[in-house]
Amino acid sequence: MNVAIIGGGSIGLLFTYYFTKKVENTVLYVRREDQAELLNRSGLKLYREGTLREVKVKTKVLQEEEKIKADLVVIAVKQYDLAELAETVKTRISEQAQLLFVQNGMGHVSIMKTLPQDHIYVGVVDHGALKIAEHKVEHSGEGTVKLAAFRGDSDAAAPIFDQLAESRFPIEVQEDWYQLLAEKLLVNAVINPLTALYHVENGRLLTNDYFHQNMKNLFDEAFHVLCLEDKEKSWNNVKDVCNQTARNRSSMLRDIETGRQTEIDAISGYLLERADRKACSVPLTKFVYNGIIGLTVNPG
Amino acid sequence: MNVAIIGGGSIGLLFTYYFTKKVENTVLYVRREDQAELLNRSGLKLYREGTLREVKVKTKVLQEEEKIKADLVVIAVKQYDLAELAETVKTRISEQAQLLFVQNGMGHVSIMKTLPQDHIYVGVVDHGALKIAEHKVEHSGEGTVKLAAFRGDSDAAAPIFDQLAESRFPIEVQEDWYQLLAEKLLVNAVINPLTALYHVENGRLLTNDYFHQNMKNLFDEAFHVLCLEDKEKSWNNVKDVCNQTARNRSSMLRDIETGRQTEIDAISGYLLERADRKACSVPLTKFVYNGIIGLTVNPG
Repeated sequence: MNVAIIGGGSIGLLFTYYFTKKVENTVLYVRREDQAELLNRSGLKLYREGTLREVKVKTKVLQEEEKIKADLVVIAVKQYDLAELAETVKTRISEQAQLLFVQNGMGHVSIMKTLPQDHIYVGVVDHGALKIAEHKVEHSGEGTVKLAAFRGDSDAAAPIFDQLAESRFPIEVQEDWYQLLAEKLLVNAVINPLTALYHVENGRLLTNDYFHQNMKNLFDEAFHVLCLEDKEKSWNNVKDVCNQTARNRSSMLRDIETGRQTEIDAISGYLLERADRKACSVPLTKFVYNGIIGLTVNPG
Repeated sequence: MNVAIIGGGSIGLLFTYYFTKKVENTVLYVRREDQAELLNRSGLKLYREGTLREVKVKTKVLQEEEKIKADLVVIAVKQYDLAELAETVKTRISEQAQLLFVQNGMGHVSIMKTLPQDHIYVGVVDHGALKIAEHKVEHSGEGTVKLAAFRGDSDAAAPIFDQLAESRFPIEVQEDWYQLLAEKLLVNAVINPLTALYHVENGRLLTNDYFHQNMKNLFDEAFHVLCLEDKEKSWNNVKDVCNQTARNRSSMLRDIETGRQTEIDAISGYLLERADRKACSVPLTKFVYNGIIGLTVNPG
């Protein structure tokens, strides 16, 4: 089996480390030449529980013209880079290849619909991963990769992903892709913007009564828009994630603090579009959306 | 005429400076003995346009038992200290004395109703004033003191306040106390919490389109709750204040940054109570209220 991973961020590096250990023919595609060179020269380093591990990796620069030959392609770029990548997926990846998208939010749904491939999976990554250099990733929290077929058959996924999983990097196949993404979106739509606005670790949304009230009210809006079924279960899931990641600074908080682009469009922005189509009112979602975008744009 | 000013914060010091210059029998009452001693020993210093000015002031400690003998008493403590002060006003100030309350928000309305005095005014202070030491205040922006009778007759105010006003410290008497406070409350309910949440100067609410949208939506809620008449005029007033104070950091932002108590209860908290009585929904007001309180309390 040949595996390709597109994206040299924390999640792309994490997949590359674990998949390379299981399948020798794993190739990582990155955007920048300097990152590719560094990885090819120095290998990929992973910190876990204070220990440094290393694998040799094959890294290529994405912009080259050649076809991406792989049976499975993991697409691990950020939501906001996906539109640009769509052309590459259409023209340089075989229609028989299986694709796995691991973005946050739901922004990729409309893009996936335009692709020619017959087997497309979406994945949700619960791992904590922090990119500490262009060739170094810290595996800071062990979790699970959950995936489901967006197009094609979930049953086809099992034999492939069974080969790639290991105890430190388990993979779980679920039935309902919408349920899978929506539950993750709910978590992100609540925890990310609030921690970024208040500059607090995730756990403060549980321990501070006032933040907690805001979290619940924002959750209620998002839950309603997403048309999920079991409200109590979803709310418990949000609180569980908050609790399990209590000492973490969310990715959106880190993006705001370092002046990087956030994923707010794929998260709250998706909810706003969906609310608009359903003609339902989501004042708090709009408020946090504007707040996060406002914090990342220049005045004027 | 005898004048008393209660409160040794920036606004109390500002009134004391200008009133002492016009009326020799002006006494400032402060809470802490060290501040009273310093003021009596060193005088009150005021910076304006880079120049230092000084007046001798009579300062007393508020906690002493004696009556506060004055024809006019300006009450310039923070909203959240007012409940404690009410007993002093009832028992130690003559019923014939005229009272002027210069708090932000509307929290003082319910307290003023319980007082025995026949002449009570409310004032809105547009001046920029920054306390830089216990005996030093910077008059950073010149404005107006607008006041209106809350109890008694507005006409009675003119002869008193004409004696106290000067070109750098003009006083304007208006007819409708509710209109006066409500317009100021609108400004505070919008500018203060948003600048404190986003950590920006007032002007950013005009120049950043996303913050501006949130400001407008928050304004709409507050305007509706306050039952004012001319929405366009009120909105223009909020924008004018934002523009005139574009380079200022709001008092609430400074309170949040230095970990002090804010006036959110008298501002957004008042709107929440009023919305509750009118059974109208104010999700954004509740959201910013929770956010600001959350930022000033300990977790747990």
